[in-house]
Amino acid sequence: MFSVTVRDHMMVAHSLEGEVFGPAQRLHGATYVVDATFRGDSLDDDGILVDIGRATEELHRAVGDLSYRNLDDEPEFKGTNSTTEVLARHLADRLADQVRAGALGPAGGVSGIVVTLHESHVAWASYERAT
Amino acid sequence: MFSVTVRDHMMVAHSLEGEVFGPAQRLHGATYVVDATFRGDSLDDDGILVDIGRATEELHRAVGDLSYRNLDDEPEFKGTNSTTEVLARHLADRLADQVRAGALGPAGGVSGIVVTLHESHVAWASYERAT
Amino acid sequence: MFSVTVRDHMMVAHSLEGEVFGPAQRLHGATYVVDATFRGDSLDDDGILVDIGRATEELHRAVGDLSYRNLDDEPEFKGTNSTTEVLARHLADRLADQVRAGALGPAGGVSGIVVTLHESHVAWASYERAT
Amino acid sequence: MFSVTVRDHMMVAHSLEGEVFGPAQRLHGATYVVDATFRGDSLDDDGILVDIGRATEELHRAVGDLSYRNLDDEPEFKGTNSTTEVLARHLADRLADQVRAGALGPAGGVSGIVVTLHESHVAWASYERAT
Amino acid sequence: MFSVTVRDHMMVAHSLEGEVFGPAQRLHGATYVVDATFRGDSLDDDGILVDIGRATEELHRAVGDLSYRNLDDEPEFKGTNSTTEVLARHLADRLADQVRAGALGPAGGVSGIVVTLHESHVAWASYERAT
Amino acid sequence: MFSVTVRDHMMVAHSLEGEVFGPAQRLHGATYVVDATFRGDSLDDDGILVDIGRATEELHRAVGDLSYRNLDDEPEFKGTNSTTEVLARHLADRLADQVRAGALGPAGGVSGIVVTLHESHVAWASYERAT
Repeated sequence: MFSVTVRDHMMVAHSLEGEVFGPAQRLHGATYVVDATFRGDSLDDDGILVDIGRATEELHRAVGDLSYRNLDDEPEFKGTNSTTEVLARHLADRLADQVRAGALGPAGGVSGIVVTLHESHVAWASYERAT
Repeated sequence: MFSVTVRDHMMVAHSLEGEVFGPAQRLHGATYVVDATFRGDSLDDDGILVDIGRATEELHRAVGDLSYRNLDDEPEFKGTNSTTEVLARHLADRLADQVRAGALGPAGGVSGIVVTLHESHVAWASYERAT
Repeated sequence: MFSVTVRDHMMVAHSLEGEVFGPAQRLHGATYVVDATFRGDSLDDDGILVDIGRATEELHRAVGDLSYRNLDDEPEFKGTNSTTEVLARHLADRLADQVRAGALGPAGGVSGIVVTLHESHVAWASYERAT
Repeated sequence: MFSVTVRDHMMVAHSLEGEVFGPAQRLHGATYVVDATFRGDSLDDDGILVDIGRATEELHRAVGDLSYRNLDDEPEFKGTNSTTEVLARHLADRLADQVRAGALGPAGGVSGIVVTLHESHVAWASYERAT
Repeated sequence: MFSVTVRDHMMVAHSLEGEVFGPAQRLHGATYVVDATFRGDSLDDDGILVDIGRATEELHRAVGDLSYRNLDDEPEFKGTNSTTEVLARHLADRLADQVRAGALGPAGGVSGIVVTLHESHVAWASYERAT
Repeated sequence: MFSVTVRDHMMVAHSLEGEVFGPAQRLHGATYVVDATFRGDSLDDDGILVDIGRATEELHRAVGDLSYRNLDDEPEFKGTNSTTEVLARHLADRLADQVRAGALGPAGGVSGIVVTLHESHVAWASYERAT
C-alpha cells in the first residue's frame, strides 16, 4: 500500500455551540495545518500514485474556499458545528469528489483519502474514507 | 473513520535489563512526548468524537502518575522492562479504562486507542488497541 | 548568555484593516503557537535563569487572557491591527511586566524577553525587548 | 499492535522522466528524511518489538547505499523513475529482507514494515508491506 | 526589535569540491527548507513590519530561480562550492536586493535579513546581513 | 554572520535540589535534543564555516560522554544542579574547547557557539558564548 501526503493550511473564525465546548463557544479562530493523504495499491507507468504538484494544487483549492472566512456564515456548516473532525470530513469529501472528477489525473490507483487537521502543536483530528 | 489526537509529555528515569540494551542498561532517563489518539466511526450531536479539552485532561492525568519518577521503583513495571513499547501499552490500557469509565463523556463513538511515545527526534513507538 | 523558552498557544478571531491584507481583511482567525524566551547573563543559586514551571504558568496566564476571543472586540487592540507582530509585542510587554512584578520569582538574571508567534507552519513573527 | 519507528536521512540527485513532472524532469535532488516503522503483535522477553539501536543501524545501512549518489546512475532504478513512492518501496523491501535475514535479531514479532520519505516540510510518501 | 519569518523550499542537485566533503564530492542533491527572516525596529501604520503575503511571494521567487536545477551548471556558483552557507548568503543577498528595490513595499522598517537553510532534520545553516 | 547547526540527543537521569523544582526534586530523567550552533564572519576556501560532518561527530562525542548516565553521579555536576541551563553551558564549554583544540579543523572563522537543549516539545534552554 502506497500513500502520498501534501500539506497546506487555512485560517478561519468560528464558534462552537454546546456546553461541552466551554470558552470555545465564543467566536474565536484557528489555523488548521491540513495534511491530505492519498492511498492506493499501485503506481502508474510514471512511478507515482498521484502527482505531488497536482495534489498540492487540489488541496490548495479545497482549503482556499474556506480560508480567511468566518465559518459560522458559511452555508456548508449551517446547523452543524465546524469542529476539527467535521472540517476534516468536509475536506476529505471534497478531495474525494475532485479525485473522482479526474482532477488528479487518471489516478486510478487512489482508493482512499485521509485528511488531518492540526489545530495546534498539541491537538489534531483526522477523517479517513474510500474514494 | 475519525480520529482525535492530543499531546503531552512526561520525564522519567529508568534502566533496562538485558544485554540487547547496551548502555541503556545503566540508570538513565527520557522525556516521552506522548500522543494519544482516539478513533471511532461516528460523531455525537455536538459534531465531535471526543472533547479535545477532556481528552487533554485525561491524558495529563495518565502521564502525571508516571511523571518525575524512577520507573524502576514503580510497582506497575515490577518484573518487566519499562521500554517505550511497554509504556505505550501501559498508557493505552489506562486510557481505555478511562474511556470505558466515562471519563471522556458518553464518547460512545470511541472504538480504538493509539498511544505513541516519542523518546527522541529520531525514535518513537506506538501501541494500538480496541477500547 | 542564557535563555529559557516555553511554548503555549491561543486560538483567536480577528480581522485586519488595510488593503495590503487582501482576504485577511475579512473576519477570520488563527492559532498562534507562542514561544516566550527569557534571557539573562547569570544563573541563580539553584542553577536556573527562571523556573520553567513558573514561566509556563505565566505564559499560560498571558495567552489565556486572549484565548477564545475575537480580538476585534478587545479594548487593547482598539485602533490598531492585531497583527502577528503587534500580538508578539503585546505578549512580550505583558511578560516583562510580570517579570518586573516578581511573578517569576527573584529572576534577577532576566534582562530580555523574546516572544515568537507561529501563525502557521510557514510563517511566524517575533518581538524582542529588555525587561 | 505495536510499532517502533526510527528516523534517518539521505541526500540524492535524480531526474524524473514524464511530462507530468514539469521542472522535475531536469536533474535536481532531494533530502529524504526517512522513517522506518516496524509493526508486530507481540513483544519479546526483553519487552521490545525490535531493538531501537539495531533498527537505527539497519536503516542507516539501507539509506547509506543510496546516500550522496545520482540515482539516475544506479542500476536498481534502471528503467523506472526514482519517485518518492518508488524509493519508499525500495527501502521497505530492503528492510524486509534484512528482517528476514535476522539482522534485527530474532524479531519474530515483526509482521509489517512502513517506510515514509519526507521530501520537504510539505510533502511525503509511504509504502507499507508485510515482512 | 521585530522580526517576520516565512518558509519555502527548493530541491537541487550539486557536488562539492574538496576532500573535506568526503562522499558529498559526488553529484548528489538536497531539499533545502528555507526560512527568510526580516528584522526591523518599527511597524508601519498597518501594524506590520512586512506583509507576510508579499514576503512569501518574494521568497518563492528567490528560491524558484534555483529550484529543480543542478547548481554545478549555474553561473552564480561558478568557481565556488554551493554549500549550505554559500546558498544562505546567496538568498539573503538576493532578498536584500528585492527589499531595497521596493518589492516588499515601502518596508522602511526592514534593517536586517537572516536566511536559514535546513538541509535535513539534523543540520542547517544561516546567513545574517543588513539590508 | 554565518552559522551552522547540527542536532543530536542524549538520554539521562538526574534529580534537582531546591524547593523551586517541586516534583523534579525526585529522581527522574530527560531526553535532551541538543542543537550546537557555530557562528563566524567568514567562510574558508571550501566555502564552509565548519564541516557539518565533523561538527556532527564532535557533538556526538560531547553528548556521548553524558548519554545513558545518572548525572547525580557525575563528578562534573558535583555541588551544582544539572539543570537544562547548566547542561547547555557545560556542552558549549566543551565544544569551545574542542574548536580551540582544532577538532573541527582550522575553523578559523568560528567566533561563537550556542548550545540549545530541548527538554520537551514545550521547553528548551540555550547558552551562548565566544570560542
